[in-house]
Amino acid sequence: MTVTREQVEQAAVRIDGRVRRTPVLRVSETVTFKLELLQHVGSFKPRGMFNRLLAAKEDGSLTGVGAVTASGGNAGLAVAYAARELGVPARIFVPQNAPAAKVARLRTLDADVVQVGSEYAEAYAAAVVASEESGALFAHAYDQPEVVAGQGTLGLELLEQIDGFDTVLVAVGGGGLIAGIATAIGDRARVVSVEPELAPTLARALEAGGPIDVQVGGVAADSLGARRIGEIAFEVAVRQNITPVLVDEAAITAARQELWREYRLATEHGAATAYAALTSGAYKPAADERIVVVVCGANTDLGTLS
Amino acid sequence: MTVTREQVEQAAVRIDGRVRRTPVLRVSETVTFKLELLQHVGSFKPRGMFNRLLAAKEDGSLTGVGAVTASGGNAGLAVAYAARELGVPARIFVPQNAPAAKVARLRTLDADVVQVGSEYAEAYAAAVVASEESGALFAHAYDQPEVVAGQGTLGLELLEQIDGFDTVLVAVGGGGLIAGIATAIGDRARVVSVEPELAPTLARALEAGGPIDVQVGGVAADSLGARRIGEIAFEVAVRQNITPVLVDEAAITAARQELWREYRLATEHGAATAYAALTSGAYKPAADERIVVVVCGANTDLGTLS
Ligand SMILES: Cc1ncc(COP(=O)(O)O)c(C=O)c1O
Ligand SMILES: Cc1ncc(COP(=O)(O)O)c(C=O)c1O
Repeated sequence: MTVTREQVEQAAVRIDGRVRRTPVLRVSETVTFKLELLQHVGSFKPRGMFNRLLAAKEDGSLTGVGAVTASGGNAGLAVAYAARELGVPARIFVPQNAPAAKVARLRTLDADVVQVGSEYAEAYAAAVVASEESGALFAHAYDQPEVVAGQGTLGLELLEQIDGFDTVLVAVGGGGLIAGIATAIGDRARVVSVEPELAPTLARALEAGGPIDVQVGGVAADSLGARRIGEIAFEVAVRQNITPVLVDEAAITAARQELWREYRLATEHGAATAYAALTSGAYKPAADERIVVVVCGANTDLGTLS
Repeated sequence: MTVTREQVEQAAVRIDGRVRRTPVLRVSETVTFKLELLQHVGSFKPRGMFNRLLAAKEDGSLTGVGAVTASGGNAGLAVAYAARELGVPARIFVPQNAPAAKVARLRTLDADVVQVGSEYAEAYAAAVVASEESGALFAHAYDQPEVVAGQGTLGLELLEQIDGFDTVLVAVGGGGLIAGIATAIGDRARVVSVEPELAPTLARALEAGGPIDVQVGGVAADSLGARRIGEIAFEVAVRQNITPVLVDEAAITAARQELWREYRLATEHGAATAYAALTSGAYKPAADERIVVVVCGANTDLGTLS
């Protein structure tokens, strides 16, 4: 499985008007932020989910039965939002211990929330079964070509919005976002993956020569805690020679605080992870290297920032 | 006293590189936000304060004695920040009952914070005396031509960033921001002032035919609570035929919640006031009227948003 630039360009046409073209903020001579935290439902995920649902509408696989996914986080919000906008039902499977606030948020988007099992893997399995039994479209959080292509539209915007850049720093969970961006950008810039040391799915896969399960945890696990990198992301990472970088917990927390203190950007930990590579020195740019940092989510408890 | 477009253009040259060119976010067919909450120290105020201090440096009135102002809010933060960046001391007068968090924040910017009197007017008087005695430059929060011209650079950016708009909604305290923007924009668009019903300094002045003291209070008083509109702002408001609109407390609070919920913008009440005119219907645009909403500050207790 892979994704081509053409698929990303088709995605951009398909989701036009459904997602926000999020702005960029230049913060120094060489550093620019992509403010994707201002996207609908607070993360980049609607790009991929609109593309998945709209493509399925075109080929007839999205019917009145609607869409289904497994996610207590941003992917679930995005499926719920996209389905509501497109006028079809959404069923979101989450583990029984999913935080009440997240379940409530999904319900405000009219989603049918199903709490199953004690961990994500069980919710995932139940979602797949439900999709097969009901004919609802299964939207994967990161490992389907349409999802990756949709996330890649963020990369196309960067090329239009910024007049030349050398490097893009992107946080990685299952790898849908980085695979899409890398595909959009091709050889126009270097793409660097940033992962928490406690959730190194892409870094370990690159060492092992293929996707493998890893232990995941830490402050960013709610958004970057996929246990295994997607097949598509792995393939793209190898093809595009993505540079893997790891950051520790303290770096993520400090970067998140700095994003609020210095820029008034309220982010979740996963969305501060890419910036942490810069602020901690885990990624050391050359003096004149022009860097883009993707700030990709704001679904956070504000109480933890004040 | 007035301010000309030429002064705004000079200000833009003077403060170039000192302030962020904040991005705009298109949120619907007709509505665009100017994200000035992402400015240094969390509000538009550094534009005016850099212009005031840099102009004074040029004419010799800013010396090693530094600058002084009276403000426990965003103007104080901006003077402290600009002075530190320019390598001169800042002395900020605040009332004795100023919140400890604000005093602490000013001190982290290396300002000398002086707590005097039981209300703002006493702190203001003490700041003026201190300026006269010490030779420190007095920076007014809104009623000096350089301050207004600096705020106006936000209006020049709008003209460059947005391809045609009909109306700009701007919150008003002492009127420095709106006077600058209206001067920059001239007759290219309509400028609408938005004030809390509980702090209607410009609306009452326009009725009375000149600046008058008004009672001020309410949720946005910490940023929009000037008791009297500035002379400059009044003059510009008459010259440019600014349309005054008032919004009630519930409208401000609801708009602030919506800015967080729908756009992940964490704003202070004063910065949600302009948007409140739209969401409450206090300002009713025509169907195809292209609106810019200036979202002008993020210095808020995040705990009150979550
Ligand atoms: C805010 C945020 N950043 C990054 C990611 C990682 O995205 P991906 O799984 O496509 O690598 C996620 C995934 O949920 C997210 O919510
Ligand atoms: C966030 C914010 N918005 C609006 C204003 C009003 O600005 P002015 O006093 O120039 O009208 C202020 C003033 O402090 C402010 O801090």
